[in-house]
Amino acid sequence: MRASVLSDWLAQRLDRGNGQPIYRQLHRLLQQAILSRELPAGSKVPSSRLLAQELGIGRNTVTQVYEQLVLEGYVSSATGRGTFVADSAPDEIVGAPDAEAADAARTRNAGAAQAAASPSSSSPLPQQAARALSTRGARLIAGAGVSKRQWGAFMPGVPDVTKFPARVWSRLHNKYWRRLRPDLLTYAPGGGLAALRHALADYLRTSRSVRCTPEQIIVTTGIHQSVDLAVRLLSDPGDVIWTEDPCYWGVRSVLHVSGLQSRPIAVDAEGINPSPDDLAQPPKLMLVTPSHQYPLGMVMSLARRRMLLEYARQHQCWIIEDDYDSEFRYGSRPLASLQGLDTSGQVIYVGSFGKTLFPGLRIGYLVVPEALAESFATASAELYREGQLLQQAMLAEFIAEGHFTSHIRKMRTLYGQRRQTLLDAASQRYGDALPAVGGDAGLHLVMQLPEGSDDRLVAAAALERNIIVRPLSGYYAQPSLAPSGLLIGYACVPDEAIAPAFNTLSDAIDATLPQFA
Amino acid sequence: MRASVLSDWLAQRLDRGNGQPIYRQLHRLLQQAILSRELPAGSKVPSSRLLAQELGIGRNTVTQVYEQLVLEGYVSSATGRGTFVADSAPDEIVGAPDAEAADAARTRNAGAAQAAASPSSSSPLPQQAARALSTRGARLIAGAGVSKRQWGAFMPGVPDVTKFPARVWSRLHNKYWRRLRPDLLTYAPGGGLAALRHALADYLRTSRSVRCTPEQIIVTTGIHQSVDLAVRLLSDPGDVIWTEDPCYWGVRSVLHVSGLQSRPIAVDAEGINPSPDDLAQPPKLMLVTPSHQYPLGMVMSLARRRMLLEYARQHQCWIIEDDYDSEFRYGSRPLASLQGLDTSGQVIYVGSFGKTLFPGLRIGYLVVPEALAESFATASAELYREGQLLQQAMLAEFIAEGHFTSHIRKMRTLYGQRRQTLLDAASQRYGDALPAVGGDAGLHLVMQLPEGSDDRLVAAAALERNIIVRPLSGYYAQPSLAPSGLLIGYACVPDEAIAPAFNTLSDAIDATLPQFA
Repeated sequence: MRASVLSDWLAQRLDRGNGQPIYRQLHRLLQQAILSRELPAGSKVPSSRLLAQELGIGRNTVTQVYEQLVLEGYVSSATGRGTFVADSAPDEIVGAPDAEAADAARTRNAGAAQAAASPSSSSPLPQQAARALSTRGARLIAGAGVSKRQWGAFMPGVPDVTKFPARVWSRLHNKYWRRLRPDLLTYAPGGGLAALRHALADYLRTSRSVRCTPEQIIVTTGIHQSVDLAVRLLSDPGDVIWTEDPCYWGVRSVLHVSGLQSRPIAVDAEGINPSPDDLAQPPKLMLVTPSHQYPLGMVMSLARRRMLLEYARQHQCWIIEDDYDSEFRYGSRPLASLQGLDTSGQVIYVGSFGKTLFPGLRIGYLVVPEALAESFATASAELYREGQLLQQAMLAEFIAEGHFTSHIRKMRTLYGQRRQTLLDAASQRYGDALPAVGGDAGLHLVMQLPEGSDDRLVAAAALERNIIVRPLSGYYAQPSLAPSGLLIGYACVPDEAIAPAFNTLSDAIDATLPQFA
Repeated sequence: MRASVLSDWLAQRLDRGNGQPIYRQLHRLLQQAILSRELPAGSKVPSSRLLAQELGIGRNTVTQVYEQLVLEGYVSSATGRGTFVADSAPDEIVGAPDAEAADAARTRNAGAAQAAASPSSSSPLPQQAARALSTRGARLIAGAGVSKRQWGAFMPGVPDVTKFPARVWSRLHNKYWRRLRPDLLTYAPGGGLAALRHALADYLRTSRSVRCTPEQIIVTTGIHQSVDLAVRLLSDPGDVIWTEDPCYWGVRSVLHVSGLQSRPIAVDAEGINPSPDDLAQPPKLMLVTPSHQYPLGMVMSLARRRMLLEYARQHQCWIIEDDYDSEFRYGSRPLASLQGLDTSGQVIYVGSFGKTLFPGLRIGYLVVPEALAESFATASAELYREGQLLQQAMLAEFIAEGHFTSHIRKMRTLYGQRRQTLLDAASQRYGDALPAVGGDAGLHLVMQLPEGSDDRLVAAAALERNIIVRPLSGYYAQPSLAPSGLLIGYACVPDEAIAPAFNTLSDAIDATLPQFA
């Protein structure tokens, strides 16, 4: 089928009378056309304007469907040139007969991904095939989970940056730029600015019971770089890493592109819960979120912590502790870090200022065992050639002057209120039908959807209404078998906007899930 | 031999009468003790204070020797705990009988490096062995070329950051922080801020004859991240990349840690010069510096450019063009970029603001072929989770207001004068005995040393006198076979300090090389 006859083919199949939203029908039909190769890899799809016109539907609907297909890896769009069926379309990845193919691309099926990028795959456009990404590149793109939108209700994982004390920050900036210190404008020594490492060591010792000297702290640009550094120094391609299932999508990409095989480990109410089968095959590394399981929110029990540490000691595994969201705990006191319980130097602790200050700052840190400190500092300078020392100096002073802890305190109160407002709105609309979990800490909660419902469709319908939520299933290794739910970030939404935004979200839910229609 | 008896062993062997500097003798003796395993892996060496006292020599000398041994991978120091013989000491790497072992660690002898990190290597301290880095980690550390010092005469590759228009920058900063835009404080969309991509496209089209739209520009944190991204998207572990020999040490580490095999290709007066043997085995990628070969400074000829492009087109290789130092060309006009000659979309162009503004800024960019733009933008957001949009907004305005080109113009004049001052000082002291090359462009020149002289010893002797230069041999794949020379960076040295600093450097040269004593 040539792209030019696509409109006719679609027009014959769209059914306004069957009760299914047009958005959903169009999405399914285009997936079908691509999976069946009726729309071959490399072919151009009509512009959203043209297709909307020919089908007599809203252009917005077409745009949203195209965006969804881009996210799922079915098509890619080159600005100014149009939208094309992806070279490594999900059909080639698993030969799957249905929409779940897109999910498969997100799993760690490396062999299949290789097939996708193999030069022998029959592409109708040899020139485009020659441009093919490498195997790891194609797999990275196919599995990419990053969103096109980074700000707005209910973006998960984003703090209210408008409350950041901009005046204090500007004062510090002007101070450092007035009396310019050349050593702050050049490359960073490995590990980062000493003043910041000292301030951080004090803070982490006091607030998180982390045991460390300033020399054990390595300043990075955030969790991604911290994990990248740890993985490259402590593991080799083919090594296995335990990841929690579900876990943060972004870290999976960082692990895979460095050649690690991740083994998803189920979580229960006490956190990561390896089965006897899992325990029989010790991994090289494990990546855990003990303070606040991401994204579900449970706290790892003390018993589980002790078990993990003992297991890691016996089998010489490294534990990467992502202390995500530990600062924002409503009600109960934050638990001490896993690193603080570690007596044999097996834990690599990672944290960042992205949630406590603002994401765009790009300052994070690792705390590494003493014996590794020098190697991590050297490798960081060697691999990333870091700078931003002036910003690090500002941040060190910001912490030392007490602005950091005071900002966290204020935000904890504010986010706690917003969380309650959201919970109230949800319970008012749905009662106990859609329970929320994971709200005791952090910047988001998870609203569970009825079993069997497609949370990706709900998220897409919400986006159509300008509301950003993320489908819970996307955080699992096998989305098609995962529970259905929505990550709803409340921290960045002004108090008065929460209820209206939730109403809009509930419109999307009701329009997508028949039981609420 | 226990560390406590090391002082006696050394005292018996140091010979003040043999004409060799004490620094050099001590360095060799410690290398011997480690290579022969008389000082076993993991053992602690005496503090510099104690050893200096017991040997009756200056503490500075001991400190410098220790620092040199750290750089070479023989020992590692943990602040507050002392200095230890490295787990992966060079003896285990190649079993080499002499000081060249350190060089071997810098070559791409992956098999040997594996042996070093193998858990079977007999370490006397099992606990430390358990802390061992992975194979790629150990290799990265063994080959690390990053310097502990990042500012001072004659640090190569660093511009004069004190001349940066700090007032303009502060004004822009205050403007953006006064009216806070939340979208500038959160995560970056893949590819970076649109305003900066537009400003950059205009600049690169005009100044560097780069053919691109703003969408083809991907903002990164610098050359390291740009190369990392290109390599991960376009190559797989085991793929071969051609690198120039010599080349920038930092990029080699980035390539190796991603599993690439680099094949060093000789350069001649026209730039990279692949032999028939090289040409018979097309690589997946090549990394070249056509505008100003780094570090030798020659410009790639038009014939060579055409040959490379045609070869890459025929064999489907990607060319990464590092347009290093292209802005600072004294006398002749800068040549157009290789990318501008490319008609088949095979060139990935990389550049950064590190040399034109200040290194600590950490903003660089890629220009990628149109067909890859979307994939690069997605992968960048997915792998690095970038931010720093406010800084990108400031930079876009800085460029649009004309400050960028005006600053480059001023610096070009200033650096041209400093280059001449340095050349005058060198020719006054050494005449034609030590010729300088590569000074037509860039921020450094290369002073050639007599054949057979050890440029690392000269650099170490200079560092002892607080002068930073880098040995040319360290930029080659096989330092032991490389020509001897010094990279001397003049850009960051105030005019009046150049001649005195060169005098100090010549003291170090004269003290190390007998022909000048």
